[in-house]
Amino acid sequence: MKRIAVIGLGLIGGSCCAALKKCPVDVHITGFSASRNTLKIALSKGLIDKAAKSVSESMKNSEVVVISVPVGSFYSVFSEIAFSRENDSIVTDVGSTKANIIGDVKTILGGIPNWFVPGHPIAGSESSGIEFSNPDLYHNKRVVITPLNETSTEAIKVVSDFWKLQGAEVFAMSASKHDEIFASVSHLPRFLAFALLNTIAQEKNPQEFFDFSAGGFKDISRLAGSNPVLWRDIAIGNREALLLTIDQYSKNLHKIRESIFKGDSKSLIALLSRAKNTRDSFYISD
Amino acid sequence: MKRIAVIGLGLIGGSCCAALKKCPVDVHITGFSASRNTLKIALSKGLIDKAAKSVSESMKNSEVVVISVPVGSFYSVFSEIAFSRENDSIVTDVGSTKANIIGDVKTILGGIPNWFVPGHPIAGSESSGIEFSNPDLYHNKRVVITPLNETSTEAIKVVSDFWKLQGAEVFAMSASKHDEIFASVSHLPRFLAFALLNTIAQEKNPQEFFDFSAGGFKDISRLAGSNPVLWRDIAIGNREALLLTIDQYSKNLHKIRESIFKGDSKSLIALLSRAKNTRDSFYISD
Repeated sequence: MKRIAVIGLGLIGGSCCAALKKCPVDVHITGFSASRNTLKIALSKGLIDKAAKSVSESMKNSEVVVISVPVGSFYSVFSEIAFSRENDSIVTDVGSTKANIIGDVKTILGGIPNWFVPGHPIAGSESSGIEFSNPDLYHNKRVVITPLNETSTEAIKVVSDFWKLQGAEVFAMSASKHDEIFASVSHLPRFLAFALLNTIAQEKNPQEFFDFSAGGFKDISRLAGSNPVLWRDIAIGNREALLLTIDQYSKNLHKIRESIFKGDSKSLIALLSRAKNTRDSFYISD
Repeated sequence: MKRIAVIGLGLIGGSCCAALKKCPVDVHITGFSASRNTLKIALSKGLIDKAAKSVSESMKNSEVVVISVPVGSFYSVFSEIAFSRENDSIVTDVGSTKANIIGDVKTILGGIPNWFVPGHPIAGSESSGIEFSNPDLYHNKRVVITPLNETSTEAIKVVSDFWKLQGAEVFAMSASKHDEIFASVSHLPRFLAFALLNTIAQEKNPQEFFDFSAGGFKDISRLAGSNPVLWRDIAIGNREALLLTIDQYSKNLHKIRESIFKGDSKSLIALLSRAKNTRDSFYISD
Protein backbone atom coordinates (compact mmCIF):
# COMPACT_ATOMS: atom_id res chain seq x y z
CA MET A 1 0.00 0.00 0.00
CA LYS A 2 1.72 3.11 -1.22
CA ARG A 3 -0.83 5.44 -2.73
CA ILE A 4 -3.82 6.45 -0.64
CA ALA A 5 -6.63 8.90 -1.34
CA VAL A 6 -8.48 10.46 1.57
CA ILE A 7 -11.74 12.11 0.57
CA GLY A 8 -12.98 14.41 3.32
CA LEU A 9 -10.39 15.91 5.63
CA GLY A 10 -12.16 16.37 8.95
CA LEU A 11 -11.04 14.95 12.27
CA ILE A 12 -11.45 11.35 11.08
CA GLY A 13 -9.81 11.67 7.64
CA GLY A 14 -7.15 14.08 8.90
CA SER A 15 -6.22 11.74 11.73
CA CYS A 16 -5.79 8.86 9.26
CA CYS A 17 -3.34 11.04 7.32
CA ALA A 18 -1.52 12.04 10.51
CA ALA A 19 -1.27 8.41 11.66
CA LEU A 20 -0.01 7.16 8.28
CA LYS A 21 2.56 9.95 8.04
CA LYS A 22 3.93 8.84 11.42
CA CYS A 23 4.32 5.22 10.26
CA PRO A 24 7.70 3.84 9.16
CA VAL A 25 6.12 3.10 5.76
CA ASP A 26 6.42 5.29 2.72
CA VAL A 27 2.88 6.40 1.77
CA HIS A 28 1.77 9.00 -0.73
CA ILE A 29 -1.50 10.63 0.29
CA THR A 30 -3.76 12.54 -2.07
CA GLY A 31 -6.37 14.52 -0.22
CA PHE A 32 -9.65 16.03 -1.30
CA SER A 33 -11.89 18.39 0.58
CA ALA A 34 -14.76 20.58 -0.61
CA SER A 35 -13.09 23.36 1.38
CA ARG A 36 -10.02 24.98 -0.19
CA ASN A 37 -8.95 26.24 3.21
CA THR A 38 -8.96 22.70 4.64
CA LEU A 39 -6.85 21.49 1.72
CA LYS A 40 -4.34 24.30 2.36
CA ILE A 41 -4.08 23.40 6.04
CA ALA A 42 -3.65 19.71 5.19
CA LEU A 43 -0.84 20.51 2.76
CA SER A 44 0.90 22.97 5.07
CA LYS A 45 0.78 20.51 7.98
CA GLY A 46 2.24 17.77 5.77
CA LEU A 47 -0.84 15.62 6.30
CA ILE A 48 -1.24 15.10 2.56
CA ASP A 49 1.28 15.07 -0.29
CA LYS A 50 -1.09 16.32 -2.94
CA ALA A 51 -4.33 18.28 -2.98
CA ALA A 52 -6.80 16.99 -5.57
CA LYS A 53 -9.26 19.34 -7.22
CA SER A 54 -12.03 16.75 -7.36
CA VAL A 55 -13.00 13.31 -6.11
CA SER A 56 -12.18 11.93 -9.59
CA GLU A 57 -8.73 13.44 -9.57
CA SER A 58 -7.97 12.04 -6.11
CA MET A 59 -8.83 8.53 -7.41
CA LYS A 60 -6.05 8.47 -9.99
CA ASN A 61 -3.49 5.78 -9.23
CA SER A 62 -4.78 5.38 -5.70
CA GLU A 63 -4.62 1.86 -4.31
CA VAL A 64 -6.82 2.59 -1.30
CA VAL A 65 -9.56 5.25 -1.26
CA VAL A 66 -10.99 6.29 2.10
CA ILE A 67 -14.32 8.12 2.14
CA SER A 68 -14.34 10.18 5.33
CA VAL A 69 -17.23 12.56 4.79
CA PRO A 70 -20.42 12.90 6.91
CA VAL A 71 -22.78 9.98 6.21
CA GLY A 72 -25.20 12.29 4.40
CA SER A 73 -22.58 13.14 1.77
CA PHE A 74 -21.64 9.51 1.08
CA TYR A 75 -24.08 9.08 -1.79
CA SER A 76 -22.74 11.89 -3.92
CA VAL A 77 -19.09 11.06 -3.21
CA PHE A 78 -19.57 7.36 -3.93
CA SER A 79 -21.39 8.17 -7.17
CA GLU A 80 -18.37 10.12 -8.34
CA ILE A 81 -16.04 7.32 -7.27
CA ALA A 82 -18.13 4.72 -9.10
CA PHE A 83 -18.01 6.87 -12.22
CA SER A 84 -14.29 7.58 -12.19
CA ARG A 85 -12.78 4.37 -10.76
CA GLU A 86 -10.32 3.17 -13.41
CA ASN A 87 -7.73 0.97 -11.78
CA ASP A 88 -7.94 -1.70 -9.05
CA SER A 89 -8.45 0.66 -6.15
CA ILE A 90 -10.04 -0.68 -2.98
CA VAL A 91 -12.58 1.69 -1.47
CA THR A 92 -13.66 1.94 2.16
CA ASP A 93 -15.55 4.42 4.30
CA VAL A 94 -15.65 5.52 7.95
CA GLY A 95 -19.38 6.13 8.44
CA SER A 96 -21.13 5.48 11.75
CA THR A 97 -24.02 3.74 10.00
CA LYS A 98 -23.54 0.81 7.64
CA ALA A 99 -26.77 -0.63 6.21
CA ASN A 100 -27.74 2.69 4.62
CA ILE A 101 -24.28 3.12 3.08
CA ILE A 102 -24.55 -0.34 1.57
CA GLY A 103 -28.01 0.60 0.31
CA ASP A 104 -26.53 3.68 -1.38
CA VAL A 105 -23.86 1.53 -3.04
CA LYS A 106 -26.50 -0.91 -4.34
CA THR A 107 -28.57 1.94 -5.74
CA ILE A 108 -25.59 3.53 -7.45
CA LEU A 109 -24.02 0.37 -8.91
CA GLY A 110 -27.07 -1.89 -9.14
CA GLY A 111 -25.23 -4.41 -6.95
CA ILE A 112 -22.37 -4.89 -4.48
CA PRO A 113 -18.86 -4.62 -5.94
CA ASN A 114 -16.00 -6.81 -4.66
CA TRP A 115 -13.79 -3.75 -4.12
CA PHE A 116 -15.79 -1.89 -1.44
CA VAL A 117 -15.38 -2.64 2.30
CA PRO A 118 -17.73 -0.72 4.63
CA GLY A 119 -15.88 0.38 7.76
CA HIS A 120 -16.33 2.30 11.00
CA PRO A 121 -13.49 3.32 13.33
CA ILE A 122 -14.68 3.51 16.96
CA ALA A 123 -12.79 6.63 17.86
CA GLY A 124 -13.49 10.30 17.79
CA SER A 125 -13.63 13.44 19.79
CA GLU A 126 -16.14 16.22 20.41
CA SER A 127 -13.77 18.47 18.46
CA SER A 128 -14.13 18.31 14.71
CA GLY A 129 -12.04 19.60 11.85
CA ILE A 130 -8.57 19.08 10.40
CA GLU A 131 -7.02 21.27 13.13
CA PHE A 132 -7.67 18.47 15.62
CA SER A 133 -6.05 15.72 13.52
CA ASN A 134 -4.43 13.32 15.93
CA PRO A 135 -1.89 10.66 14.80
CA ASP A 136 -2.84 8.52 17.83
CA LEU A 137 -6.62 8.72 17.41
CA TYR A 138 -6.89 5.08 16.31
CA HIS A 139 -4.11 3.68 18.44
CA ASN A 140 -5.47 0.68 20.38
CA LYS A 141 -8.96 1.52 19.17
CA ARG A 142 -11.42 -0.80 17.42
CA VAL A 143 -12.45 -0.57 13.79
CA VAL A 144 -15.53 -2.49 12.68
CA ILE A 145 -15.74 -3.62 9.07
CA THR A 146 -18.96 -5.07 7.63
CA PRO A 147 -17.91 -6.95 4.48
CA LEU A 148 -20.57 -8.62 2.33
CA ASN A 149 -20.59 -11.98 0.53
CA GLU A 150 -19.49 -10.17 -2.62
CA THR A 151 -16.49 -8.46 -0.96
CA SER A 152 -13.15 -9.94 -2.04
CA THR A 153 -10.74 -11.39 0.52
CA GLU A 154 -8.06 -9.16 -0.96
CA ALA A 155 -10.14 -6.01 -0.35
CA ILE A 156 -10.79 -7.05 3.26
CA LYS A 157 -7.06 -7.62 3.78
CA VAL A 158 -6.07 -4.26 2.27
CA VAL A 159 -8.56 -2.32 4.39
CA SER A 160 -7.66 -4.27 7.55
CA ASP A 161 -3.97 -3.54 6.94
CA PHE A 162 -4.78 0.15 6.42
CA TRP A 163 -6.22 0.33 9.96
CA LYS A 164 -3.68 -1.98 11.60
CA LEU A 165 -0.92 0.28 10.30
CA GLN A 166 -2.54 3.03 12.39
CA GLY A 167 -2.52 0.88 15.53
CA ALA A 168 -6.18 -0.21 15.46
CA GLU A 169 -7.74 -3.65 15.95
CA VAL A 170 -10.13 -4.75 13.21
CA PHE A 171 -13.42 -6.64 13.86
CA ALA A 172 -15.83 -7.94 11.23
CA MET A 173 -19.59 -8.22 11.74
CA SER A 174 -22.76 -7.88 9.67
CA ALA A 175 -24.00 -4.39 8.83
CA SER A 176 -27.31 -5.02 10.63
CA LYS A 177 -25.57 -6.19 13.80
CA HIS A 178 -23.30 -3.13 13.60
CA ASP A 179 -26.25 -0.78 13.23
CA GLU A 180 -28.17 -2.42 16.08
CA ILE A 181 -25.22 -2.23 18.50
CA PHE A 182 -24.21 1.32 17.61
CA ALA A 183 -27.78 2.60 17.71
CA SER A 184 -27.82 1.66 21.40
CA VAL A 185 -24.29 2.34 22.63
CA SER A 186 -23.31 5.29 20.48
CA HIS A 187 -26.23 7.02 18.77
CA LEU A 188 -28.83 6.78 21.56
CA PRO A 189 -26.52 8.39 24.20
CA ARG A 190 -26.07 11.44 21.92
CA PHE A 191 -29.78 11.94 21.44
CA LEU A 192 -30.35 11.59 25.20
CA ALA A 193 -27.78 14.34 25.67
CA PHE A 194 -29.40 16.58 23.04
CA ALA A 195 -32.78 16.12 24.78
CA LEU A 196 -31.23 16.86 28.21
CA LEU A 197 -29.71 20.13 26.99
CA ASN A 198 -32.99 21.13 25.33
CA THR A 199 -34.68 20.60 28.70
CA ILE A 200 -32.26 22.99 30.40
CA ALA A 201 -32.66 25.42 27.47
CA GLN A 202 -36.33 25.80 28.39
CA GLU A 203 -35.51 27.14 31.86
CA LYS A 204 -35.82 30.88 32.47
CA ASN A 205 -32.25 31.11 33.61
CA PRO A 206 -30.19 28.20 32.26
CA GLN A 207 -26.95 29.64 33.65
CA GLU A 208 -28.20 29.02 37.19
CA PHE A 209 -28.60 25.36 36.31
CA PHE A 210 -25.15 25.10 34.74
CA ASP A 211 -23.62 26.80 37.80
CA PHE A 212 -24.59 23.90 40.02
CA SER A 213 -24.01 21.06 37.61
CA ALA A 214 -21.47 18.44 38.57
CA GLY A 215 -19.56 15.61 36.89
CA GLY A 216 -22.44 13.50 35.61
CA PHE A 217 -24.19 16.37 33.89
CA LYS A 218 -20.95 17.64 32.39
CA ASP A 219 -20.08 14.24 30.95
CA ILE A 220 -23.48 13.97 29.28
CA SER A 221 -23.60 17.58 28.11
CA ARG A 222 -20.22 17.11 26.41
CA LEU A 223 -22.02 14.73 24.03
CA ALA A 224 -24.46 17.46 23.06
CA GLY A 225 -21.55 19.56 21.84
CA SER A 226 -21.28 17.28 18.80
CA ASN A 227 -21.83 18.50 15.27
CA PRO A 228 -25.60 18.69 14.48
CA VAL A 229 -25.15 17.92 10.75
CA LEU A 230 -23.11 14.81 11.49
CA TRP A 231 -25.72 13.54 13.94
CA ARG A 232 -28.66 14.48 11.74
CA ASP A 233 -27.04 12.30 9.07
CA ILE A 234 -26.45 9.46 11.53
CA ALA A 235 -30.03 9.67 12.85
CA ILE A 236 -31.52 9.49 9.39
CA GLY A 237 -28.92 6.96 8.22
CA ASN A 238 -29.63 4.57 11.09
CA ARG A 239 -33.30 5.52 11.43
CA GLU A 240 -34.78 2.05 11.85
CA ALA A 241 -32.43 0.72 14.54
CA LEU A 242 -32.33 4.07 16.30
CA LEU A 243 -36.13 4.37 16.55
CA LEU A 244 -36.28 0.86 18.00
CA THR A 245 -33.77 1.65 20.73
CA ILE A 246 -35.23 5.11 21.49
CA ASP A 247 -38.66 3.48 21.97
CA GLN A 248 -37.22 0.74 24.16
CA TYR A 249 -35.35 3.35 26.17
CA SER A 250 -38.45 5.55 26.54
CA LYS A 251 -40.36 2.57 27.93
CA ASN A 252 -37.60 1.96 30.47
CA LEU A 253 -37.55 5.60 31.53
CA HIS A 254 -41.33 5.53 31.81
CA LYS A 255 -41.17 2.51 34.12
CA ILE A 256 -38.83 4.43 36.43
CA ARG A 257 -41.10 7.49 36.16
CA GLU A 258 -44.15 5.44 37.15
CA SER A 259 -42.38 3.95 40.16
CA ILE A 260 -41.39 7.44 41.33
CA PHE A 261 -44.92 8.72 40.68
CA LYS A 262 -46.43 5.91 42.74
CA GLY A 263 -43.71 6.17 45.38
CA ASP A 264 -43.20 2.45 44.76
CA SER A 265 -39.96 1.94 46.63
CA LYS A 266 -39.73 -1.80 45.95
CA SER A 267 -40.09 -1.49 42.19
CA LEU A 268 -37.70 1.50 42.09
CA ILE A 269 -35.01 -0.48 43.91
CA ALA A 270 -35.55 -3.37 41.47
CA LEU A 271 -35.23 -1.09 38.41
CA LEU A 272 -32.17 0.79 39.66
CA SER A 273 -30.48 -2.41 40.84
CA ARG A 274 -31.01 -4.05 37.47
CA ALA A 275 -29.21 -1.12 35.83
CA LYS A 276 -26.39 -1.12 38.36
CA ASN A 277 -25.93 -4.90 38.12
CA THR A 278 -25.83 -4.72 34.33
CA ARG A 279 -23.22 -2.02 34.52
CA ASP A 280 -21.17 -3.87 37.14
CA SER A 281 -21.37 -7.38 35.73
CA PHE A 282 -20.24 -6.76 32.17
CA TYR A 283 -16.82 -5.73 31.13
CA ILE A 284 -16.67 -2.28 29.58
CA SER A 285 -13.60 -2.00 27.39
CA ASP A 286 -11.25 0.95 27.79
CA MET B 1 -15.93 25.11 66.55
CA LYS B 2 -14.18 22.38 68.44
CA ARG B 3 -16.60 19.54 69.01
CA ILE B 4 -18.31 18.04 65.99
CA ALA B 5 -20.63 15.06 65.68
CA VAL B 6 -20.89 13.25 62.36
CA ILE B 7 -23.88 10.94 62.13
CA GLY B 8 -23.51 8.54 59.23
CA LEU B 9 -19.99 7.66 58.14
CA GLY B 10 -20.23 6.95 54.43
CA LEU B 11 -18.24 8.72 51.70
CA ILE B 12 -19.78 12.13 52.50
CA GLY B 13 -19.54 12.01 56.31
CA GLY B 14 -16.18 10.23 56.26
CA SER B 15 -14.72 12.82 53.88
CA CYS B 16 -15.86 15.64 56.21
CA CYS B 17 -13.94 13.91 59.02
CA ALA B 18 -10.87 13.41 56.81
CA ALA B 19 -10.94 17.07 55.68
CA LEU B 20 -11.33 18.41 59.23
CA LYS B 21 -8.54 16.19 60.56
CA LYS B 22 -6.24 17.67 57.91
CA CYS B 23 -7.04 21.26 58.97
CA PRO B 24 -4.70 23.22 61.20
CA VAL B 25 -7.56 23.52 63.69
CA ASP B 26 -8.01 21.31 66.71
CA VAL B 27 -11.35 19.50 66.30
CA HIS B 28 -12.77 16.65 68.31
CA ILE B 29 -15.03 14.42 66.20
CA THR B 30 -17.58 12.03 67.61
CA GLY B 31 -18.86 9.65 64.99
CA PHE B 32 -21.92 7.46 64.84
CA SER B 33 -22.77 4.76 62.35
CA ALA B 34 -25.37 2.02 62.45
CA SER B 35 -22.55 -0.31 61.37
CA ARG B 36 -20.05 -1.35 64.06
CA ASN B 37 -17.56 -2.24 61.40
CA THR B 38 -17.72 1.28 59.90
CA LEU B 39 -17.15 2.77 63.36
CA LYS B 40 -14.10 0.53 63.82
CA ILE B 41 -12.63 1.60 60.48
CA ALA B 42 -13.31 5.30 61.25
CA LEU B 43 -11.53 4.98 64.62
CA SER B 44 -8.60 2.99 63.26
CA LYS B 45 -8.08 5.46 60.41
CA GLY B 46 -8.14 8.36 62.88
CA LEU B 47 -11.16 9.90 61.12
CA ILE B 48 -13.05 10.18 64.41
CA ASP B 49 -11.86 10.62 67.99
CA LYS B 50 -14.74 8.83 69.61
CA ALA B 51 -17.31 6.27 68.50
CA ALA B 52 -20.78 6.95 69.90
CA LYS B 53 -23.17 4.08 70.60
CA SER B 54 -26.25 6.06 69.56
CA VAL B 55 -27.33 9.28 67.87
CA SER B 56 -28.20 10.69 71.32
CA GLU B 57 -24.76 9.90 72.70
CA SER B 58 -23.03 11.55 69.73
CA MET B 59 -24.99 14.76 70.45
CA LYS B 60 -23.47 15.29 73.90
CA ASN B 61 -21.38 18.46 74.05
CA SER B 62 -21.31 18.72 70.25
CA GLU B 63 -21.33 22.25 68.86
CA VAL B 64 -22.05 21.16 65.29
CA VAL B 65 -23.96 18.04 64.34
CA VAL B 66 -23.78 16.83 60.74
CA ILE B 67 -26.41 14.39 59.54
CA SER B 68 -24.81 12.47 56.68
CA VAL B 69 -27.15 9.54 56.18
CA PRO B 70 -29.15 8.64 53.03
CA VAL B 71 -32.13 11.00 52.65
CA GLY B 72 -34.55 8.17 53.50
CA SER B 73 -32.99 7.79 56.98
CA PHE B 74 -33.15 11.51 57.80
CA TYR B 75 -36.53 11.34 59.50
CA SER B 76 -35.57 8.78 62.13
CA VAL B 77 -32.15 10.37 62.79
CA PHE B 78 -33.61 13.87 63.12
CA SER B 79 -36.34 12.57 65.46
CA GLU B 80 -33.66 11.23 67.78
CA ILE B 81 -31.71 14.50 67.53
CA ALA B 82 -34.81 16.56 68.32
CA PHE B 83 -35.46 14.35 71.33
CA SER B 84 -31.94 14.40 72.75
CA ARG B 85 -30.68 17.90 71.87
CA GLU B 86 -29.70 19.48 75.21
CA ASN B 87 -27.16 22.22 74.56
CA ASP B 88 -26.86 24.87 71.87
CA SER B 89 -25.73 22.58 69.08
CA ILE B 90 -26.24 23.68 65.51
CA VAL B 91 -27.50 20.90 63.23
CA THR B 92 -27.03 20.57 59.47
CA ASP B 93 -27.44 17.81 56.90
CA VAL B 94 -25.92 16.84 53.53
CA GLY B 95 -29.00 15.53 51.71
CA SER B 96 -29.44 15.92 47.95
CA THR B 97 -33.08 17.00 48.41
CA LYS B 98 -34.11 19.86 50.63
CA ALA B 99 -37.87 20.58 50.67
CA ASN B 100 -38.70 17.08 51.91
CA ILE B 101 -36.04 17.30 54.67
CA ILE B 102 -37.56 20.58 55.81
CA GLY B 103 -40.99 18.92 55.71
CA ASP B 104 -39.66 16.15 57.96
CA VAL B 105 -38.32 18.73 60.41
CA LYS B 106 -41.68 20.54 60.51
CA THR B 107 -43.51 17.27 61.14
CA ILE B 108 -41.14 16.27 63.91
CA LEU B 109 -40.93 19.62 65.72
CA GLY B 110 -44.22 21.22 64.67
CA GLY B 111 -42.23 24.14 63.22
CA ILE B 112 -38.80 25.25 62.02
CA PRO B 113 -36.12 25.66 64.72
CA ASN B 114 -33.50 28.42 64.52
CA TRP B 115 -30.69 25.87 64.98
CA PHE B 116 -31.09 23.77 61.83
CA VAL B 117 -29.45 24.70 58.50
CA PRO B 118 -30.31 22.42 55.55
CA GLY B 119 -27.22 21.83 53.39
CA HIS B 120 -26.02 19.98 50.31
CA PRO B 121 -22.36 19.64 49.28
CA ILE B 122 -22.02 19.36 45.48
CA ALA B 123 -19.35 16.70 45.50
CA GLY B 124 -19.30 12.97 45.44
CA SER B 125 -18.04 9.93 43.70
CA GLU B 126 -19.51 6.73 42.29
CA SER B 127 -17.66 4.94 45.10
CA SER B 128 -19.45 4.89 48.42
CA GLY B 129 -18.38 3.95 51.93
CA ILE B 130 -15.91 5.11 54.55
CA GLU B 131 -13.03 3.36 52.70
CA PHE B 132 -13.23 6.06 50.04
CA SER B 133 -13.09 9.01 52.47
CA ASN B 134 -11.19 11.78 50.77
CA PRO B 135 -9.86 14.84 52.64
CA ASP B 136 -9.99 16.85 49.39
CA LEU B 137 -13.53 15.87 48.35
CA TYR B 138 -14.91 19.35 49.11
CA HIS B 139 -11.88 21.37 48.11
CA ASN B 140 -12.98 24.09 45.67
CA LYS B 141 -16.44 22.53 45.50
CA ARG B 142 -19.77 24.24 46.10
CA VAL B 143 -22.03 23.67 49.07
CA VAL B 144 -25.62 24.88 48.86
CA ILE B 145 -27.41 25.82 52.07
CA THR B 146 -31.15 26.54 52.12
CA PRO B 147 -31.78 28.48 55.34
CA LEU B 148 -35.33 29.52 56.25
CA ASN B 149 -36.70 32.73 57.76
CA GLU B 150 -36.53 31.07 61.16
CA THR B 151 -32.86 30.06 60.84
CA SER B 152 -30.55 32.14 63.02
CA THR B 153 -27.69 34.14 61.51
CA GLU B 154 -25.37 32.47 63.98
CA ALA B 155 -26.40 28.99 62.79
CA ILE B 156 -25.80 29.99 59.15
CA LYS B 157 -22.36 31.29 60.06
CA VAL B 158 -21.37 28.17 61.98
CA VAL B 159 -22.43 25.85 59.15
CA SER B 160 -20.80 28.06 56.49
CA ASP B 161 -17.54 28.04 58.48
CA PHE B 162 -17.75 24.27 58.83
CA TRP B 163 -17.67 23.92 55.03
CA LYS B 164 -15.20 26.75 54.35
CA LEU B 165 -12.75 25.04 56.70
CA GLN B 166 -12.89 22.09 54.28
CA GLY B 167 -12.11 24.31 51.29
CA ALA B 168 -15.65 24.66 49.93
CA GLU B 169 -17.57 27.73 48.73
CA VAL B 170 -21.00 28.21 50.30
CA PHE B 171 -24.11 29.43 48.39
CA ALA B 172 -27.52 30.12 49.85
CA MET B 173 -30.80 29.66 47.95
CA SER B 174 -34.37 28.61 48.68
CA ALA B 175 -35.13 24.91 49.12
CA SER B 176 -37.57 24.92 46.20
CA LYS B 177 -35.02 26.53 43.85
CA HIS B 178 -32.44 24.00 45.03
CA ASP B 179 -34.77 21.09 44.37
CA GLU B 180 -35.74 22.41 40.94
CA ILE B 181 -32.11 22.90 39.84
CA PHE B 182 -30.83 19.60 41.19
CA ALA B 183 -33.76 17.64 39.80
CA SER B 184 -32.59 18.69 36.32
CA VAL B 185 -28.79 18.76 36.55
CA SER B 186 -28.14 16.00 39.05
CA HIS B 187 -31.08 13.66 39.59
CA LEU B 188 -32.41 13.47 36.01
CA PRO B 189 -29.01 12.46 34.51
CA ARG B 190 -28.84 9.48 36.93
CA PHE B 191 -32.30 8.23 35.97
CA LEU B 192 -31.44 8.61 32.28
CA ALA B 193 -28.40 6.44 32.93
CA PHE B 194 -30.41 3.81 34.82
CA ALA B 195 -32.89 3.67 31.90
CA LEU B 196 -30.05 3.39 29.36
CA LEU B 197 -28.48 0.45 31.19
CA ASN B 198 -31.86 -1.26 31.52
CA THR B 199 -32.22 -0.93 27.75
CA ILE B 200 -28.91 -2.74 27.18
CA ALA B 201 -29.89 -5.30 29.85
CA GLN B 202 -32.79 -6.37 27.60
CA GLU B 203 -30.48 -7.37 24.76
CA LYS B 204 -29.79 -11.06 24.21
CA ASN B 205 -26.06 -10.53 24.53
CA PRO B 206 -25.29 -7.32 26.45
CA GLN B 207 -21.55 -8.05 26.44
CA GLU B 208 -21.48 -7.56 22.67
CA PHE B 209 -22.90 -4.07 23.19
CA PHE B 210 -20.43 -3.19 25.94
CA ASP B 211 -17.54 -4.42 23.76
CA PHE B 212 -18.16 -1.68 21.22
CA SER B 213 -19.10 1.11 23.57
CA ALA B 214 -16.97 4.24 23.55
CA GLY B 215 -16.45 7.30 25.74
CA GLY B 216 -19.96 8.75 25.73
CA PHE B 217 -21.62 5.51 26.75
CA LYS B 218 -19.02 4.84 29.42
CA ASP B 219 -19.47 8.29 30.95
CA ILE B 220 -23.22 7.81 31.19
CA SER B 221 -23.05 4.21 32.36
CA ARG B 222 -20.75 5.25 35.20
CA LEU B 223 -23.73 7.16 36.64
CA ALA B 224 -25.77 3.95 36.69
CA GLY B 225 -23.18 2.44 39.03
CA SER B 226 -24.55 4.61 41.84
CA ASN B 227 -26.14 3.16 44.96
CA PRO B 228 -29.80 2.19 44.26
CA VAL B 229 -30.95 2.87 47.86
CA LEU B 230 -29.47 6.37 47.82
CA TRP B 231 -31.15 7.17 44.50
CA ARG B 232 -34.44 5.58 45.48
CA ASP B 233 -34.44 7.95 48.49
CA ILE B 234 -33.54 10.95 46.32
CA ALA B 235 -36.22 10.09 43.74
CA ILE B 236 -38.92 9.81 46.37
CA GLY B 237 -37.55 12.77 48.33
CA ASN B 238 -37.54 15.08 45.30
CA ARG B 239 -40.53 13.42 43.65
CA GLU B 240 -42.41 16.52 42.55
CA ALA B 241 -39.53 18.42 40.90
CA LEU B 242 -38.11 15.22 39.45
CA LEU B 243 -41.39 14.17 37.79
CA LEU B 244 -41.68 17.64 36.23
CA THR B 245 -38.21 17.48 34.69
CA ILE B 246 -38.57 13.83 33.59
CA ASP B 247 -41.79 14.75 31.78
CA GLN B 248 -40.21 17.82 30.18
CA TYR B 249 -37.24 15.71 29.14
CA SER B 250 -39.46 12.95 27.72
CA LYS B 251 -41.25 15.53 25.58
CA ASN B 252 -37.92 16.80 24.27
CA LEU B 253 -36.74 13.28 23.46
CA HIS B 254 -40.08 12.59 21.77
CA LYS B 255 -39.67 15.69 19.56
CA ILE B 256 -36.29 14.37 18.39
CA ARG B 257 -37.83 10.91 17.90
CA GLU B 258 -40.61 12.34 15.74
CA SER B 259 -38.17 14.28 13.57
CA ILE B 260 -36.14 11.11 13.01
CA PHE B 261 -39.31 9.12 12.33
CA LYS B 262 -40.46 11.64 9.73
CA GLY B 263 -36.95 12.04 8.33
CA ASP B 264 -37.48 15.77 8.93
CA SER B 265 -33.95 17.00 8.41
CA LYS B 266 -34.74 20.67 9.01
CA SER B 267 -36.42 20.15 12.34
CA LEU B 268 -33.72 17.70 13.45
CA ILE B 269 -30.98 20.25 12.72
CA ALA B 270 -32.96 22.86 14.67
CA LEU B 271 -33.38 20.57 17.69
CA LEU B 272 -29.77 19.41 17.76
CA SER B 273 -28.44 22.93 17.20
CA ARG B 274 -30.51 24.28 20.06
CA ALA B 275 -28.92 21.71 22.37
CA LYS B 276 -25.42 22.38 21.08
CA ASN B 277 -25.85 26.15 21.34
CA THR B 278 -27.16 25.85 24.89
CA ARG B 279 -24.19 23.74 25.81
CA ASP B 280 -21.73 26.06 24.08
CA SER B 281 -23.13 29.41 25.17
CA PHE B 282 -23.34 28.89 28.90
CA TYR B 283 -20.42 28.54 31.18
CA ILE B 284 -20.20 25.12 32.80
CA SER B 285 -18.21 25.35 36.01
CA ASP B 286 -15.32 22.95 36.62
